[in-house]
Amino acid sequence: MTENQNFFNNEELRQETELRLRKLLPILSESGADALIIASNANVYYCAGRFFRGYIYINKEGRTLYFVIRPNNFCPEENLLYIRKPEQIPAELEKLGIPLPSRIGIERDDLTWSDCERLRKVFPDAEVINASPIMRKARLIKTPYEIELIREDGTHQAAVYSKVARLYSRDMTDLEFQIEIERILRLEGSLGTLRVAGNLMEINMGSVIAGENADTPSPYDFAMGGAGVDTSVPGGASGEIMRMGQTVMVDMNGNFNGYNSDMTRVWSIGEVSPLARKAHACSIRILRELEKISLPGTEVCRLYNHAMEIVEKEGLSEYFMGHRQHAAFIGHGIGIELNEMPAITPRCKDILRENMTLAIEPKFVIPEVGAVGVENSYVVTPSGLENLTPFHEEIINLL
Amino acid sequence: MTENQNFFNNEELRQETELRLRKLLPILSESGADALIIASNANVYYCAGRFFRGYIYINKEGRTLYFVIRPNNFCPEENLLYIRKPEQIPAELEKLGIPLPSRIGIERDDLTWSDCERLRKVFPDAEVINASPIMRKARLIKTPYEIELIREDGTHQAAVYSKVARLYSRDMTDLEFQIEIERILRLEGSLGTLRVAGNLMEINMGSVIAGENADTPSPYDFAMGGAGVDTSVPGGASGEIMRMGQTVMVDMNGNFNGYNSDMTRVWSIGEVSPLARKAHACSIRILRELEKISLPGTEVCRLYNHAMEIVEKEGLSEYFMGHRQHAAFIGHGIGIELNEMPAITPRCKDILRENMTLAIEPKFVIPEVGAVGVENSYVVTPSGLENLTPFHEEIINLL
Repeated sequence: MTENQNFFNNEELRQETELRLRKLLPILSESGADALIIASNANVYYCAGRFFRGYIYINKEGRTLYFVIRPNNFCPEENLLYIRKPEQIPAELEKLGIPLPSRIGIERDDLTWSDCERLRKVFPDAEVINASPIMRKARLIKTPYEIELIREDGTHQAAVYSKVARLYSRDMTDLEFQIEIERILRLEGSLGTLRVAGNLMEINMGSVIAGENADTPSPYDFAMGGAGVDTSVPGGASGEIMRMGQTVMVDMNGNFNGYNSDMTRVWSIGEVSPLARKAHACSIRILRELEKISLPGTEVCRLYNHAMEIVEKEGLSEYFMGHRQHAAFIGHGIGIELNEMPAITPRCKDILRENMTLAIEPKFVIPEVGAVGVENSYVVTPSGLENLTPFHEEIINLL
Repeated sequence: MTENQNFFNNEELRQETELRLRKLLPILSESGADALIIASNANVYYCAGRFFRGYIYINKEGRTLYFVIRPNNFCPEENLLYIRKPEQIPAELEKLGIPLPSRIGIERDDLTWSDCERLRKVFPDAEVINASPIMRKARLIKTPYEIELIREDGTHQAAVYSKVARLYSRDMTDLEFQIEIERILRLEGSLGTLRVAGNLMEINMGSVIAGENADTPSPYDFAMGGAGVDTSVPGGASGEIMRMGQTVMVDMNGNFNGYNSDMTRVWSIGEVSPLARKAHACSIRILRELEKISLPGTEVCRLYNHAMEIVEKEGLSEYFMGHRQHAAFIGHGIGIELNEMPAITPRCKDILRENMTLAIEPKFVIPEVGAVGVENSYVVTPSGLENLTPFHEEIINLL
């Protein structure tokens, strides 16, 4: 096995996967399952600390086996078994004297119906429960190492955003601007890929939204979608020239190491209207207040409702989280996937805990100007939110 | 509704979706289903000729209804119904006097278990069959318009490849080279995204593989995977400097309009070894022979077996489709997804038909040199394969 370059050494990786297992086991036990059979890309990466093609079997006693179908350079070195197909797993368990589960967890929100049914038939006598909520809950609170990875992402993303203004030239389209940002993100080390839960979000490396395009509805789960340039993926930059008085919202890829930071800043072509400036200042104020009230023990819905109170007091509701179409959230968990739990919505029942990581994005769409607002990624600490994406928050004039 | 920019006008779009429906109906009828409820991104795009968020209901009489959840600018204008959730669909069907199905097709290979079960409960009295094979079969033979889109992709991709040599500078890494290719692909109009069937292929915009990295196993379903630069997505360029005597294989994104062309060419740093040149010439010879024998009515496995015969006669088997790890295919269907049916494998039972589109990629990995070989995208015509990605096929020396 080659050394995993995300860790200083394999001993560190072993300790990290053990820590993750210790967080998972009580949740597994509570679920009533005897074992999980993990197969989704994001959860394989989480449980093994590296991605390989195959399955991870974890029983409630904490016994973990890595069943690898297609070996690569970074496969686990211990508890590793090569198989050609999942149907071989029960025989391998029996050889090791590990009893077959009578209740097995399969990731029913992450795998296709056909893949789930195939795994069900691998354990024909077992009752099946959904492993996806178990894994979402285990991944909700990050380990110190995971937080370090997101912090590292944030520093790279800020370094890229510090160069964005230099990429602009007069009469550029939003798409041309985005392409130059994509390039410097990649040169800074962005992996280019994004893991997203669900099959609805189809983006390449994020979103650059200028002017009126911010108010164009898109079919994807974004606050401000944009028209895109093709009806096959109708979202994002529209290819129009960015004009005087417009804003450009940059919400690009923050995956430099398997984890994501999510970060939005706004640039402008010349000066923008007083309403746009007011809304942008309101977004920053919301972040400052939420940073203070988001203590461990706080209900997640309180973040949403507190933001709404500020917005209403300032008379900006009609522009908040969209104008022609409004999104009913102001943020979301982040980690291996861009859209983890919790969703910061009016009715979210989750409670903030120390070491949860959140992206908070109070944004506004101002007609004829464009999108304004700031998004930061945070970790919940005993004294409130710590910003993992610190960078100048004011609108930066590109002229 | 805004005009769909992929079509000259909405009448053309209406005719195209009708043509697709006429191809689908006999396959639907043969399956025994009364209706399909389509929800996967690729199949929604196929059936509607544009992407929207929602569901398409198609019954065996050909009645098609578009149930839209999140409107965008390019929604269908006829047979359109807005819903908030799929549970509203049966009541809408009843209102229109459309009988509920007693056998419904759901895309069980494309949607998660949870999404499939949700749809099953929408039609609680219906027997469920798998709609994924029905849709794969319907999409197997392309309409003239789909072929035009892939041909258009091919011309864009060739235009980009004609500029690749100019992007090289001495002591560049494979990853730096890839980033410059990504940029000109995007400037040429590449949408950046890729639709891929299954959840196993995680790439951003394709693959640039130089030198020994071609022989590094990756967990993904690629012929020559590469190590990548991070254990979270262990595939692709490795970030090493490209050295004298090595090849660089460029197999990048060909999605400019919702359809894909798939095209590979090889560049080199200086001269490469006689063995590498011989293998590359063999790849070109395989393509020329397959272009002639791939007539409508030919078994797909014959393409694979004919290629293997040539490779064996030339004594190159140990390098074919990988060296340390071999892939057991030499090509695949292409269309909306990069990996459509048929897979060109030794035991494929499919028969070539006119207007199928294929990518054929006989590649070799030569130790210490790298990957060689050519990939073209083709359409099956009455006189053999027509190349949709015509471009210089010899190895191009970057020095």
